[in-house]
Amino acid sequence: MAARVRFRRSAYSAVVKGKVASSGTLGLLVSLAAWFERMARTHDRGRRQRPRRVLSQRFERTRSRAMPQNRRRQNDPTARRIGVDWGTTHVRAWLLGAGGRVLDVRRDDRGMGRIAGDEAAFGAVYDTLVADWPDVPALACGMVGARQGWIEAPYVEVPTALIGLASRAVTVTSPKGRRLAILPGICQREPADVMRGEETKLVGLALEAPDVASSGFALLPGTHSKHAALEEGCVVHFRSVPTGELFDVLGQHSLLRFSLERDGAYDAIAFDDAVLEGATLRAGELTAALFNLRARSLLEAFSPAAARGRLSGLLIGAELALLDRERPIALVGSGGMIEPISRAFRVLGRPAPRVFDGDALVRRALAHLAALLEGADI
Amino acid sequence: MAARVRFRRSAYSAVVKGKVASSGTLGLLVSLAAWFERMARTHDRGRRQRPRRVLSQRFERTRSRAMPQNRRRQNDPTARRIGVDWGTTHVRAWLLGAGGRVLDVRRDDRGMGRIAGDEAAFGAVYDTLVADWPDVPALACGMVGARQGWIEAPYVEVPTALIGLASRAVTVTSPKGRRLAILPGICQREPADVMRGEETKLVGLALEAPDVASSGFALLPGTHSKHAALEEGCVVHFRSVPTGELFDVLGQHSLLRFSLERDGAYDAIAFDDAVLEGATLRAGELTAALFNLRARSLLEAFSPAAARGRLSGLLIGAELALLDRERPIALVGSGGMIEPISRAFRVLGRPAPRVFDGDALVRRALAHLAALLEGADI
Repeated sequence: MAARVRFRRSAYSAVVKGKVASSGTLGLLVSLAAWFERMARTHDRGRRQRPRRVLSQRFERTRSRAMPQNRRRQNDPTARRIGVDWGTTHVRAWLLGAGGRVLDVRRDDRGMGRIAGDEAAFGAVYDTLVADWPDVPALACGMVGARQGWIEAPYVEVPTALIGLASRAVTVTSPKGRRLAILPGICQREPADVMRGEETKLVGLALEAPDVASSGFALLPGTHSKHAALEEGCVVHFRSVPTGELFDVLGQHSLLRFSLERDGAYDAIAFDDAVLEGATLRAGELTAALFNLRARSLLEAFSPAAARGRLSGLLIGAELALLDRERPIALVGSGGMIEPISRAFRVLGRPAPRVFDGDALVRRALAHLAALLEGADI
Repeated sequence: MAARVRFRRSAYSAVVKGKVASSGTLGLLVSLAAWFERMARTHDRGRRQRPRRVLSQRFERTRSRAMPQNRRRQNDPTARRIGVDWGTTHVRAWLLGAGGRVLDVRRDDRGMGRIAGDEAAFGAVYDTLVADWPDVPALACGMVGARQGWIEAPYVEVPTALIGLASRAVTVTSPKGRRLAILPGICQREPADVMRGEETKLVGLALEAPDVASSGFALLPGTHSKHAALEEGCVVHFRSVPTGELFDVLGQHSLLRFSLERDGAYDAIAFDDAVLEGATLRAGELTAALFNLRARSLLEAFSPAAARGRLSGLLIGAELALLDRERPIALVGSGGMIEPISRAFRVLGRPAPRVFDGDALVRRALAHLAALLEGADI
């Protein structure tokens, strides 16, 4: 076991210390081979240990929920890392123990969007979030590293090794002297595309399902859905589809605002029909279908819940039609997104994707990458 | 000439008095035959008179602009009709003389959207608009006849004879005792669609270009573009494509608001490329192209004017791809819409459409239909 740990650390450290460029070097090939081999081993171990992992996850969830938010953990000897997911609309911080176990969690709604460009505000929010936690190695991902974030962590270009992202982290120091490493996003030149935050979920996915990372496809539905092709631990290509944003913007600001159910309830039959339709539409037909939806609510007994189901189905059907039918897909998401997407797969007669919890993947990735950065045991 | 006038009046009166149902009756066929015959005659006359018409339109425009807005015309003996175009965002009223000549014009920004459902407000706005005009027959079109308008003028279902719309007008009386007839909109059950206001432009088009009305296709670009197939003076089928609304909503409320030029300037090369691309995209590819546009403005030196051109081109290209390539098209619009649409036709290698001024068609249609309603000389 000791030998295996040493092997893993040396394989990683080659990547972490920046010996691996984003493409084309011998170093890359060597490290990728080591990384791939390691993933295969983790995969076997993961299979044997799956029942235990599921149990421990349940235990962690209970524990996290039961934990009083204001309990001071400044001297908690079990705390190992701090992981931060700082997006546009909110920020979450986890205090993590050995193996990425969640010891405590904090949340704030001062996402990057609210304090864009205000370095002092980022520092103050961070110091408040982690005030009563021990000063252990901390790593953040998401929009906090955008140009309008705390500090810019420039994009890494595809193709890029997922585990190599840690070596591109940029470090800030808070007003109270806390150091926080911030992960970069990933970009693609042709066609132009960017992601910030989702790449960390992909790192978690690579740790959780090495077979997917070696040759697979990840679908991360959301405001800006990401479709990522993975090969040998690298993101080789990706595409963003702003399905969630379109749904929100159309539902709130277009003529459809008068037709849509507000409380989120949707009619499953209308959804199913629309998924099939959306998957076959041309671009202009989708635009026309939006007006048709308004007209149906004027002319027919088309309920607001049916309208909501139909809009959601049209957009999701159109999005899923972009996916390669032959490739097995890992679906990475949280809460409410999983059910309609899984349903849409069934409606389209496609094999059910393997489902992974996005939040769990982020925590796992942050714990792992923070350890790499510090050169400590993982 | 007297005989011709009488023929025209009797042919119309059959329609106006409601003898013609929306479909399927012998009366419809008889009246359509008469209407079609009349159009053929008008067409020949129209050809001969075209140079004069163009000159008189120019004269009217000059006169209308030169007219002081507050000049009292209460006793103007040349005034024959009042035409009102009352849409969602604003209302315009024209005082019309013989042959639809514009004697005066009034405008107000209390469109249906601002006073929806408020009957008293509609009455007050109308009385103010026409206060110093003589009490001649008045006819309105547009959202003023919607459920949330002054009074509901229920939709007429396709296929429907354009000239027959006058018989479905609903009359209101203002607080000051003015009578105003309000035209219905048109609806279609399968696929569900509606229009209110555009049908009046189609009536004007039928008067202006009877050949288009007998077998043609009208494209009315705008917030909710309308594509209408016309046969023998009837609207037989139509489709709404909310291109303008999508452009506005995405530019103001989506992630694209950070990328788009605000002052309306657009890059023609980016527009042309995007028209070609938009015409070939699948629905999901259009969605993805929206994010790609944002990514280009983050990663490349992609200017706000280029972004504006690209968004406009993608949506217009997608819309025009829906049009039958073989059918000659009449393009009905005003001001800024005509140039980019005409440009997109050229980019797509399609024959240039014949262009008609939408406002002029509305005035002509309102003057004509108001005369029909009153049984007076046209």
